[in-house]
Formats: sequence, structure tokens, C-alpha cells
Amino acid sequence: MTIYADNAATTKMSPTAIQAMLPYMDETYGNPSSLHSLGQRAAEALWSARETVAACLGGDPKEIYFTSGGSEADNQAILSATAIGAKKGKNHIISTAFEHHAVLHTLEKLKKQGFDIELLSVGERGTVTAGQVAAAIREDTCLVTIMYANNEIGSVLPIAEIGAVCREKGVLFHTDAVQAAGHLHIDVVAQNIDLLSLSAHKFHGPKGIGVLYARRGISLTNVIEGGAQERGKRAGTENIPAIMGMAAALKEAVEHIDENAARVSALRDKLIAGLEQVPHSALNGDPKNRLSGNVNFCFEGIEGESLLLLLDGKGICASSGSACTSGSLDPSHVLLSIGRPHEVAHGSLRLSLCEWNTEGEVDYMLAEIPGIVEYLRNMSPLWKDKVSGKKPFVL
Amino acid sequence: MTIYADNAATTKMSPTAIQAMLPYMDETYGNPSSLHSLGQRAAEALWSARETVAACLGGDPKEIYFTSGGSEADNQAILSATAIGAKKGKNHIISTAFEHHAVLHTLEKLKKQGFDIELLSVGERGTVTAGQVAAAIREDTCLVTIMYANNEIGSVLPIAEIGAVCREKGVLFHTDAVQAAGHLHIDVVAQNIDLLSLSAHKFHGPKGIGVLYARRGISLTNVIEGGAQERGKRAGTENIPAIMGMAAALKEAVEHIDENAARVSALRDKLIAGLEQVPHSALNGDPKNRLSGNVNFCFEGIEGESLLLLLDGKGICASSGSACTSGSLDPSHVLLSIGRPHEVAHGSLRLSLCEWNTEGEVDYMLAEIPGIVEYLRNMSPLWKDKVSGKKPFVL
Repeated sequence: MTIYADNAATTKMSPTAIQAMLPYMDETYGNPSSLHSLGQRAAEALWSARETVAACLGGDPKEIYFTSGGSEADNQAILSATAIGAKKGKNHIISTAFEHHAVLHTLEKLKKQGFDIELLSVGERGTVTAGQVAAAIREDTCLVTIMYANNEIGSVLPIAEIGAVCREKGVLFHTDAVQAAGHLHIDVVAQNIDLLSLSAHKFHGPKGIGVLYARRGISLTNVIEGGAQERGKRAGTENIPAIMGMAAALKEAVEHIDENAARVSALRDKLIAGLEQVPHSALNGDPKNRLSGNVNFCFEGIEGESLLLLLDGKGICASSGSACTSGSLDPSHVLLSIGRPHEVAHGSLRLSLCEWNTEGEVDYMLAEIPGIVEYLRNMSPLWKDKVSGKKPFVL
Repeated sequence: MTIYADNAATTKMSPTAIQAMLPYMDETYGNPSSLHSLGQRAAEALWSARETVAACLGGDPKEIYFTSGGSEADNQAILSATAIGAKKGKNHIISTAFEHHAVLHTLEKLKKQGFDIELLSVGERGTVTAGQVAAAIREDTCLVTIMYANNEIGSVLPIAEIGAVCREKGVLFHTDAVQAAGHLHIDVVAQNIDLLSLSAHKFHGPKGIGVLYARRGISLTNVIEGGAQERGKRAGTENIPAIMGMAAALKEAVEHIDENAARVSALRDKLIAGLEQVPHSALNGDPKNRLSGNVNFCFEGIEGESLLLLLDGKGICASSGSACTSGSLDPSHVLLSIGRPHEVAHGSLRLSLCEWNTEGEVDYMLAEIPGIVEYLRNMSPLWKDKVSGKKPFVL
């Protein structure tokens, strides 16, 4: 038995998405830049995918740029907005302390170039308010970049309110919607979003493909120079099979978005209620405004890595923090940003569900996890110090 | 009947490559950064692909970086080498006038940053010698970037000799091997190559995936910032299905490289011999040192675009110049670089073959093309001026 509860890291491709890809591998395999009919059929497919994606986001097909994934889209969005800002002498950027590293590391690069980076505090619940953003915007602010939903703790941020504040103040607003796309409603017009990034493999689409939405009139800076693909803003032969797979997966996800959210959040809530019974445990992230599939707990006195390995032995695929940083020994910057102490941040567990998980799987996880936590605690010197009163409990 | 003779633009995926991808879409779909067994199986696959690709190039698996394609790899190679150069106060770059735009446009960006770009003349045959490179290298040269084979006219350049010169003079050498990989022997050690780019979809692999080979000790500059994938040098969840497809396609191509070259070059030579019979035509590129699949002709007095459309009507998929620039009205920079006049450069035809083309297809093309050229010439006022002696023939 294998239970896949790591859908925030990546997802299994849907049959619909795979079927949408296959014909473009060995039938309509032409280069869309070629004039012959095999190329032009690929070009028509490319345009149809652009229309599909645009319809799912509320934008125009000409505002859709296909990239190699969410990280590239985040990089390009931020570098573009700041290049526009720099031309006007504006070099202040507002973001949050718990963005994905594709955002934070790009901001670090810009800091070295002289940009002034302000990371808003996200508080214990892991969110920011539009009021915080409004208070932080200055005359020289060129960009607000704030994620739609956090990849580790699942908090959903008030993107529409933040978008409204930015639009009113004339500041470009980018949102990293990698965890949101296909799971939360997106309407770039109603939500006043100027730039948005998404990645297909987070909603049962293929890996290696993503989207940068850029509102008309926003001049993009190339991350990859070369051919004239994507209206000259992203060089490289278009990855038509992956683009078709992504468009099909996004359409499928958006068509079922409410029923999936209802189904998955019921599973999530059962998991959360069960894990809250574990002593000295705490849910991370906003209890209400959270992704329908996200469960993230800290268990005092244990190491997350040991927990994952024992869970894996029971057939449960889970993670501790984000997959992107799992090689690191540092505790999650996200958990530190919401005020968890280092010691507790090391003992975190993320279970991220999708619509294919079942109640039986949730019951199985609830039957296994508390015992594994207890087993690990019994082996832990730190835990013994706490039980004996030598060190205080935090949670 | 459809004859696909545009393999330099992109190729049909091989069944081997498709079969290598599929299991990683909905079975071993884990994120290789995840600690659980589904992730670790993906990580093992990733390593095996790295070993396969390294073996095909003569390098070490740790010198292989997976990118989204050849353009990204070209960008990263050049930006990395020049960043290393800049730290030492070296800002002179040697390249050629007929590189791919992924190279030339990156060099243009660097020129704006103060780098001194020297584009070597490629002569009538479209090649450069190691002697030209040696003569151009200066104390402040930080990079020589010269393609292995030209994408339009198929010239194969003396990469090993150029590599030897660069190594002797202590200058980093990058080669854009996008057209060469899978078709020409590559041995990065024997050929003294420091940095090499390739793209899978040029040898029956998937689109959207490529390789940057970087010799150990060469510090790469990130093009995409974010997670710690690819030893921290290329952020974004690894595109495992495409990586597996690429490794399988490259292995297959390399295993059959000599027999494919013999078979395809025989078809090429028959096509060239036939098209040379068309009056006022000329082969572009080096007649001997050329890619086994490349046929590129100028036909005086016609427009390449009209020729392509009529060929398409006969079921022949061909191109004029590279696919990447087909939207442009400018004549090919490659044909201009070998001295073709603007007027003649507009009348070019590239037929690029692969091992799946047949002699019957070559016969069919030879039966159709001369008549179409004649038909177009009969409609052309320019041609009438030439026939009447008002304008001279060039070819």
C-alpha cells in the first residue's frame, strides 16, 4: 500500500493530461515556427493552449507566456518588474519572509544590485494583510511580490485585497500562484494581478512547464535570450507536448475546482482533527484560510527526517517542509517565519492531499502517525529532558 | 504522403524515448528531492540519466546539468564563462558571425554590459579555422564560443582543433552542439571542450529539455534562481520524464551514430547532386565537412517562403533558414555571413534529413523541386529581368 500525501511537492499526472501530450510527440511533432503544415498544426495547438490557459486565469491569450516552470516564471516576473522600476528610479520591493526560494533568491540577487528589499512579517498564522502592504508601499516601490498560497503551511493570502491596494497605488503586483493554480479561483482582472506564475506539475500536469501571466503593457525582460518564441520574450523551441498537457490539466482542475476543494478539505479537516489529539503538537498555518489539501504539524521532540523515513516504511509518502530544500539541514524558513523555534521547526510534517486520496487513506494515516511520533519521542534524549522537567515544553 | 525533411528544426520522438518517459508520468512520478521512496526512485532515475548522458559525451555525471533546452544551456554557459572572466578583468569574447541567436543575442546583452565581442568571419564555406581563433585570442579573452555544426547550412567546424588552441592559451571554450549531439562524435575530454550545450528534440528526444556540460571546476552562474536542484545551479523541479526520454534518445543515437551517418549522408549526397542540376542554384555550406542530414541551397530569382508553401502542398516539410527566425522578413544572418547577397539569401531551401527518411522520398523530392523552382521563376519579375539581361545572374 502506498499513500501519496506529497502533492505539494509534485503530483501524479492525470490521464487527461497524458493523453493530451502524446499526439504531439510522434504525430503533430512539428516546430510551431515552421511554415509547413506540420509546423502550422503545432502552432495552432500552441494557440489553443494559450486560449485555454488564459480562460482559466481570466486573462487574454496574448498575456500568457509559457516558461519551463514556476521558478523560471517567478524569476522573469520579478526581474521584469524591477527593470521597469529601475528605469523610473524606483528600487523598493515588498515581499514576505515566507516566499518560495525562487522569489527570495531572486530578491537576494537584486539586493546585491542595489534594490531595497522589504520582507513583511507573516505573523503566527502565516499571512499578511492588505493593510500591511498599503503601509509598506513608498514612493519608490516598484514591485509587490506575495504568494497566493504558501507551499509549506498552506496559508491562503488575501491576494485580491493586496491587488486592489497595489493597483490603487500604481505599484506592480506579482503573485507566485504555484500552489494555488488549479486549486483556488484565479481571476487576474478581478484580483488586480499584474504578473502571476504557475507550474503544471502541481495540478496533475507535466513537469518542466509553467506559465508567466503578464498584463498587457508590461514589458518583460528575457531570462533566456535567443529565438523569437513567446513574442520574443522567452527563447527556445516551444515544448508543445508539455504545453498541451498543462492546458488540459489546468482546464480539468478548474472545471472541478469547487467539488475537489470540498472533497479534499473534508479529508484535510479529518486529518487535522486527528493529529491535534497528539500531545504537544501544533498545526502550522492559518486554520481557516488554508489550501484544501494542506496539513502541516509540528511535533515537539522529534526529528522530521526520522518521522518521514518511518512513515515511508509504512507506505506513506510525506514531507517535512518543501521538497526543494529537503537536502538542507537548516530548519524551514517558513516555519521560522511564523515564529516556531528552531528545535520545533525541525519536527514538522507536511501531508498534502489531492482529490485522489481517500478517507481510508486518512484513517490509515491517523492510525499510524501518533504511534510513530510516540516511538520517536521515546528514543529522543530531548524528549526525556522535557518529560523529566529539565527542559520546558514549547507546544 | 508527407515527407518530413525539417529535422534540423525538430524531430519526431523515437518510440524508445517515448517509452522511457511514460513510467515517470504516472508511476515513478515523485519529486527527486523528496525523501520518501517514490521520490528516491525518481532521484535514482535522475542519476542514471546523468550517467547515461555523461557516457555519451565523455564527461563525468557531476559535470552534467539539465536545463530546459539548448537556448537556456547556451545562455548559462556564456553568462558563466564571462562572469568568471569579469572577475579577472577579462572582457573579450570570440565567436562567429553565424552562431545561433541563443548565442548571438546573449553576446549582444553582454556587449551592452561592456564586453568586447569579436565575431570571426566564416568565409564562403561557412567555417572557421583553429588558426583564426589562435590569432584572435588576446590577453583579455575570457571565452571562445563557437558552434560544433551550423543549424542552417550544416557546416561542421573543427571543434577539437579549436579546443586544443583554447586549452593551450588558457581560455574557456564553449561549443553550441545543438545540431551535433547524437549526429557527430563528441568527447569533451579529447576535444578539450569546457562547456557544451545540447537539446534533446534535435535527436528524436523530447522538447523542453537540454544539457549544459560544464567541466569540473567551472563555477556556473544561475540563469534561474530558486531551489537547490542541479547542485544549486539550476532551480526548478527536475523534469524527470523528459530527462529520461532525452537520455534514452541520446544513447540510441550515439549507439547508431556511424551507421546513421552513412545512411543519411548517402541520401543527402543524392539530393545535393540532383539539386545541383537546377540552373542558377548553389549549395550553401561546406561541401565536405557538413552534417550528414543537411542540404541547403540558394535558388536565384525565387522567394524561399513561396517555395516552402508549394513544397508543403506536395507533402514536403522543409524550411528556409532556421525555424527560430522564420517569422522574420530579414534574410538569414547565416547566409549573409557566407557572403550570399540579400536577394539570393531570400531564395534558400533547407532540407534536413534523418535516418527515417528513405531513398524513395529523396527521389520524390528531386522529381518535384526543380519544377516548382521553375514555376516560381516564371512568375518572378526579377527572374524575367535576369533572363532578359536587364539584371545579371549571381549564381
